[in-house]
Amino acid sequence: MPTILGQNQYGKAENRVVKITRDGATHHIKDLNVSVALSGDMDDVHYNGSNANVLPTDTTKNTVFAFAKEHGIESAEQFGVHLARHFVTSQEPIHRARIRIEEYAWERIEASGEARHSFVRKGQETRLTQVTYDGASWEVVSGLKDLTVMNSTDSEFWGYVKDRYTTLKEAYDRILATSVSARWRFNWTDGAQEMPDWDASYARVKQHMLRAFAETYSLSLQQTLYQMGSRVVEECAEVDEIRFSLPNSHHFLVDLEPFGLKNDTPDGAVYFASDRPYGLIEATVLRDGCEARIPVDLTNL
Amino acid sequence: MPTILGQNQYGKAENRVVKITRDGATHHIKDLNVSVALSGDMDDVHYNGSNANVLPTDTTKNTVFAFAKEHGIESAEQFGVHLARHFVTSQEPIHRARIRIEEYAWERIEASGEARHSFVRKGQETRLTQVTYDGASWEVVSGLKDLTVMNSTDSEFWGYVKDRYTTLKEAYDRILATSVSARWRFNWTDGAQEMPDWDASYARVKQHMLRAFAETYSLSLQQTLYQMGSRVVEECAEVDEIRFSLPNSHHFLVDLEPFGLKNDTPDGAVYFASDRPYGLIEATVLRDGCEARIPVDLTNL
Amino acid sequence: MPTILGQNQYGKAENRVVKITRDGATHHIKDLNVSVALSGDMDDVHYNGSNANVLPTDTTKNTVFAFAKEHGIESAEQFGVHLARHFVTSQEPIHRARIRIEEYAWERIEASGEARHSFVRKGQETRLTQVTYDGASWEVVSGLKDLTVMNSTDSEFWGYVKDRYTTLKEAYDRILATSVSARWRFNWTDGAQEMPDWDASYARVKQHMLRAFAETYSLSLQQTLYQMGSRVVEECAEVDEIRFSLPNSHHFLVDLEPFGLKNDTPDGAVYFASDRPYGLIEATVLRDGCEARIPVDLTNL
Amino acid sequence: MPTILGQNQYGKAENRVVKITRDGATHHIKDLNVSVALSGDMDDVHYNGSNANVLPTDTTKNTVFAFAKEHGIESAEQFGVHLARHFVTSQEPIHRARIRIEEYAWERIEASGEARHSFVRKGQETRLTQVTYDGASWEVVSGLKDLTVMNSTDSEFWGYVKDRYTTLKEAYDRILATSVSARWRFNWTDGAQEMPDWDASYARVKQHMLRAFAETYSLSLQQTLYQMGSRVVEECAEVDEIRFSLPNSHHFLVDLEPFGLKNDTPDGAVYFASDRPYGLIEATVLRDGCEARIPVDLTNL
Repeated sequence: MPTILGQNQYGKAENRVVKITRDGATHHIKDLNVSVALSGDMDDVHYNGSNANVLPTDTTKNTVFAFAKEHGIESAEQFGVHLARHFVTSQEPIHRARIRIEEYAWERIEASGEARHSFVRKGQETRLTQVTYDGASWEVVSGLKDLTVMNSTDSEFWGYVKDRYTTLKEAYDRILATSVSARWRFNWTDGAQEMPDWDASYARVKQHMLRAFAETYSLSLQQTLYQMGSRVVEECAEVDEIRFSLPNSHHFLVDLEPFGLKNDTPDGAVYFASDRPYGLIEATVLRDGCEARIPVDLTNL
Repeated sequence: MPTILGQNQYGKAENRVVKITRDGATHHIKDLNVSVALSGDMDDVHYNGSNANVLPTDTTKNTVFAFAKEHGIESAEQFGVHLARHFVTSQEPIHRARIRIEEYAWERIEASGEARHSFVRKGQETRLTQVTYDGASWEVVSGLKDLTVMNSTDSEFWGYVKDRYTTLKEAYDRILATSVSARWRFNWTDGAQEMPDWDASYARVKQHMLRAFAETYSLSLQQTLYQMGSRVVEECAEVDEIRFSLPNSHHFLVDLEPFGLKNDTPDGAVYFASDRPYGLIEATVLRDGCEARIPVDLTNL
Repeated sequence: MPTILGQNQYGKAENRVVKITRDGATHHIKDLNVSVALSGDMDDVHYNGSNANVLPTDTTKNTVFAFAKEHGIESAEQFGVHLARHFVTSQEPIHRARIRIEEYAWERIEASGEARHSFVRKGQETRLTQVTYDGASWEVVSGLKDLTVMNSTDSEFWGYVKDRYTTLKEAYDRILATSVSARWRFNWTDGAQEMPDWDASYARVKQHMLRAFAETYSLSLQQTLYQMGSRVVEECAEVDEIRFSLPNSHHFLVDLEPFGLKNDTPDGAVYFASDRPYGLIEATVLRDGCEARIPVDLTNL
Repeated sequence: MPTILGQNQYGKAENRVVKITRDGATHHIKDLNVSVALSGDMDDVHYNGSNANVLPTDTTKNTVFAFAKEHGIESAEQFGVHLARHFVTSQEPIHRARIRIEEYAWERIEASGEARHSFVRKGQETRLTQVTYDGASWEVVSGLKDLTVMNSTDSEFWGYVKDRYTTLKEAYDRILATSVSARWRFNWTDGAQEMPDWDASYARVKQHMLRAFAETYSLSLQQTLYQMGSRVVEECAEVDEIRFSLPNSHHFLVDLEPFGLKNDTPDGAVYFASDRPYGLIEATVLRDGCEARIPVDLTNL
């Protein structure tokens, strides 16, 4: 055979599960987008079309919905652990399961009366997690995307390399804006050990990330990225590694001189927010001594 | 000539203007997407390519950025009024200007120190306005889009028409979810009269819309829509008309019986959130005696 | 009652219907996205939540799929006529039906053997139609969107108005590029008269639109728009009115002088293709003596 | 230091370069979206904010546009090679450059006269390439995305694992549809050797991929994937590895029995095209003896 099969995986992607639990008149909501990817003894189906080892993707979908009922959804990570363990332990040919989950946050609508069953989607960042299990050890990488942040000052950029193609003017007071995409890896890998409090951990990571962004006087987006990452690793003992993909969302000070106007004076500076191209700064920050395992290219669901 | 020119308009669309004003260490941000559409004596350019009456779209872009400096951005609506008045009054051939604006909301990031120049985009609904001026009277239609809301109970649907193609089961306790797109028209039309407080009005409209959604025991999404609209018109004297486009974002209770599970019990119901198709409910609610002017099809920028 | 109900409509949107017909080993495909909007005696459901006049949106969905079987899909327009007639004539409370359809084109994949059941999506423009029936007369407005075209020369722009905010340099050889969105109205309104050949008409309109774009030496995008519209109306007797929304997709000649390079020489000019802002040119072209009925704002499904 | 820097890279993403070359009245167009990512001695900028080793992303943008003029754009791959070599060899601190390119295809518009400067965007798949150079060896991975294909018969799915959560009915004649995302790695790694003819190779890979899709009687999408991959590797000597990410775009036969209709008869079957969830089948096919290097998660730009 001149060709052979390499890495492969399959499953149902983007199962949109909503669970409502009722505590009297007070309702609670969990809103997830769950994707399953299974690997194992799958040579036959690729080479010959025999599905004898194939659990249908339709079944993986059913399992997601049934588990939302049977096990509940305590957190995205916990739900992923239930699912990954199930697929690997219940199916001989499946050696590895990877569960990816997006979670959408909702807030209560303030209304009259005692009813508490009305919600408005928060709409800020999307929370993410990826749980992988191979029958022996666990890997949990959580994250977020589309968290758009801006510092309107305390950002400079100068002292860089200049070559034949360099025309950029040095900047001593610029806007620094980005849409944070981040993934962080937990050091919980042994199913016998106690899990982190996943929701508390998420809130803590997000808070430290935002505060580090706000509190860093920035000489480059790379420096800000590193401050964000090291703050998270230092403050969150459960996290060993974090990777960021940060577009530098350029805000150009508009040249208003042709109109006899001076921009950037105390009464307000006017910027043009540009779409493309954008700088893209990507890096991993690690707890010293730990191995890097998050891929270079961050992925969504 | 066998063909003639009908309605026409032109201008620069989607000018992304960000303005930062500084009050000592406290910064304020306005983040807009502004589109200009001008109409007037434009036969020549269409028939013959003569641009003698054409103010370049590039100039309309420059004007947007210059006006952000010269006049500031008090509110999206006020900014639209400045721009529309300028185009109509400064250019003989231009008889009508329509300014559309999207506004993106930002919140402060809590951080140490006294600096207050760090923001995170709120990311909930997008605020909209459209200001039209023809040299004589004003029309201001504001709105919002992508405000996703859900009632997890207090919604029924039954007693409907049944024909040969009807298979739907009646529902006595369902999820009601939608992503609100709304436009409301102000009764401020005379430039000599005092304008509404645009920002206060926006907050009031949004609040009443959300509360009416939450407080309505719903027998159909049409009923909820009407309650939302009438609440806004009744509570907001400055608004005469409101139109909604409400997708019925279906959440189907999953059939778990094949797995020996009973769904919809006190410990939690599991739903499948469906993308397409969706019901789409659209209607206008008017102050009695007022004329409807918002188009049937709501538009974004 | 201080508020009243205005224009309203409802139905199931974005029903994704695919129909495969077999002519021996040769298969044919129709791939549509169908949206239904019904209007009529709907006061009760808005005011009181009574669904006694409401045909469920779920039923409108079922009807779409059943009609694809019962009546076939000869063309998007013909299919819309079947559906609109059905809703208005079969349901007393429904006075008006509007059917919107997107159609996706597919091409055959060339393969060995006699089988002809493999397709690749063409992926160019999306074909559109909107059929409206009120029990008496018909209105059919067809169209397309996302047809991206470019002339790499034979476009100028000069002789325009200059005011305080004008900085644009006149251009005597520029790229003219746009993504065509167009809607054209047929003069078939009487159900007793023979319908146009809808598919042949679509092909004719698209061809004339493209040729007029290519063959016009352009002094402004407005002029090109008018040429495209008048060509369609002149060449297609079944069409009385056409409206365009044409973004001016700016391609800026890059300034390469800082790098000692002369751009725009015979061996090739380099452009930066810009996203936002963009000029937006919109106009209607009418057969002389006909009434304009296409709304100012073009809409998709 | 409790944290350390891991893998990092930076550069300007999504530079939209359009180049027009003129051969008398016949113009040619190249339309690219180019992203640059550079790695090297970048500890200082992350730890301390010193930009002494940082070539600004703005400079990488300028270089892209200048190289389009200086070196022309023979093919996306060739252009990537020019850029990657430049960054690594001209800048001491840069050890590795990765250039990603999207290419958009255009067709000529048929028009009267001799002029040949009018184009319409083809709009089918997007062509992709990624060129990586570390100063010693080259890696070129090309690909495509959004190539939507369908077989309307000759697809079955049965004989699969059944567990407690399996409800799927076996299928003996179903639609098989997917939107192909593929990446293939060339065995050209030594800059001293002759390069493949990149454009001819792309056309060949796409053709064999489509033909294998069409000609495979499919018992599972995994089998079809493997046939597509092995066909490409067998027919294209320059390619050693290919990876696919194939969503199984479900088309469900609609149950029309409630309406007294039999679906799936010779005069045509009606399907509902579903968005989410979808099966997702991913695998690598390798030339025997070759190493797998394409990452598990395919990425776009």
